Amino acid sequence: MITSNHNPRLQQVRALLARRQEREESRLFVVEGVRLVEEALASGWRTAGIFYSAELSPRGQALVRQFAERGDETLEVEPRLMQSLTDTSTSQGLLGIFQIQSLPFSPPIHFVVIADAIRDPGNLGTLLRSAAAAGAQLVFLAPGTVDPFSPKVVRSAMGAHFRLPIESRSWDQINQFTVEHHLTPFLAESGGGTPCWQANLTAPLALVIGGEAEGPSPEARLFSVNPVTIPMPGKSESLNAAVAASILLFEIVRQRSS
Amino acid sequence: MITSNHNPRLQQVRALLARRQEREESRLFVVEGVRLVEEALASGWRTAGIFYSAELSPRGQALVRQFAERGDETLEVEPRLMQSLTDTSTSQGLLGIFQIQSLPFSPPIHFVVIADAIRDPGNLGTLLRSAAAAGAQLVFLAPGTVDPFSPKVVRSAMGAHFRLPIESRSWDQINQFTVEHHLTPFLAESGGGTPCWQANLTAPLALVIGGEAEGPSPEARLFSVNPVTIPMPGKSESLNAAVAASILLFEIVRQRSS
Repeated sequence: MITSNHNPRLQQVRALLARRQEREESRLFVVEGVRLVEEALASGWRTAGIFYSAELSPRGQALVRQFAERGDETLEVEPRLMQSLTDTSTSQGLLGIFQIQSLPFSPPIHFVVIADAIRDPGNLGTLLRSAAAAGAQLVFLAPGTVDPFSPKVVRSAMGAHFRLPIESRSWDQINQFTVEHHLTPFLAESGGGTPCWQANLTAPLALVIGGEAEGPSPEARLFSVNPVTIPMPGKSESLNAAVAASILLFEIVRQRSS
Repeated sequence: MITSNHNPRLQQVRALLARRQEREESRLFVVEGVRLVEEALASGWRTAGIFYSAELSPRGQALVRQFAERGDETLEVEPRLMQSLTDTSTSQGLLGIFQIQSLPFSPPIHFVVIADAIRDPGNLGTLLRSAAAAGAQLVFLAPGTVDPFSPKVVRSAMGAHFRLPIESRSWDQINQFTVEHHLTPFLAESGGGTPCWQANLTAPLALVIGGEAEGPSPEARLFSVNPVTIPMPGKSESLNAAVAASILLFEIVRQRSS
């Protein structure tokens, strides 16, 4: 059992939770909690260490045995050390280091989401969760977007990482992909665009979602000349960025389902 | 200038931020940041003390002068004490204690939202923000719902409190109101209900939104026999509760706008 704060494996977990550079160089990230670790296993993602403590539920213990039986490294950690690792109030006594994978996507491509400089991890995670639920095929992260493998994004995406291809790309690469796949570029705007219910969202498209604070970037505005807006009859000036994105994603689903 | 942590007015702010009972007994709550305090002022809400510190922006300083000029109490606080009051990383150097008000609502009633045991403050705040943007006339908070005047709800609602009547009610009261105003009760369900795009949401209605963890309460299921569901073509099992609520709220807006 790991009982020291200075254990190098615990320090590895801490570094992967805290630093983007660490994750990018090692191509590893941390998955917390029983449900998400189950999804990582079911999705066939390779682990570089499963950490658990005595508080773990029977369901979680069974999961740890599954990893051990297939030869993966499983390490018991003293409960107080386990809790010191995570910034969530309810540590479930389980986390795993996993290798970052690129998921395949299969043409024909008709539904792409582009996260444009979304800096809030909770917003990006919620957007990824909604994109997976809406059946988006691919999410591009444009420059300036928060690291999708940071712990808060992983937590709020609720497993979208294991089902939805998520790729960081330059605007040049995004433009090229969009042209190659004959996608119509749309841009979510908080005002002044075509009301989303009047825009035709049934053809293959790429929808850009801007950040909460600044809205679409200059590059996003160059990318798309088709702004769409959610009409708001109320007196509020705006919606949460992830909420606005989700309303548009499910408007695409609605138009395509009828 | 307030320089002591033991200053009774600072202790009042702390108590109002921390405890629901304190807010309910005094009918006071705390509004943080320049934008929200501006909205409180513009909406005519009465203050019981404006607290500011030297970091405050010129726009914020002008706001403090407005309160001072109309005879409201304004108190300068040492910056480090100001920062210790709030749990947001970026204190803007301004907060106010305001009296909780009941906003009027005017019949005919046609768009009511019922928050059913929503326990996550961020989710309730985001739901309130979306409800205000969608033009809901009234939000009822059913038993088990987090206090709408807790700081995290106030922050994430982005001013909805000043524009949208928000009332805590028993299920008996909610039922009675719904019958009196001839509202059709609908229930957001994560699966098994009428696809929301096929449900007719144009007639006067009350839409129940359940909590993230447990879904609709038994009382909510008794209240409504009209479950509506967001069809999800993707492989995810669920949406964030506030996101799902917002998609339904704007589906109501869409149906009514065409």
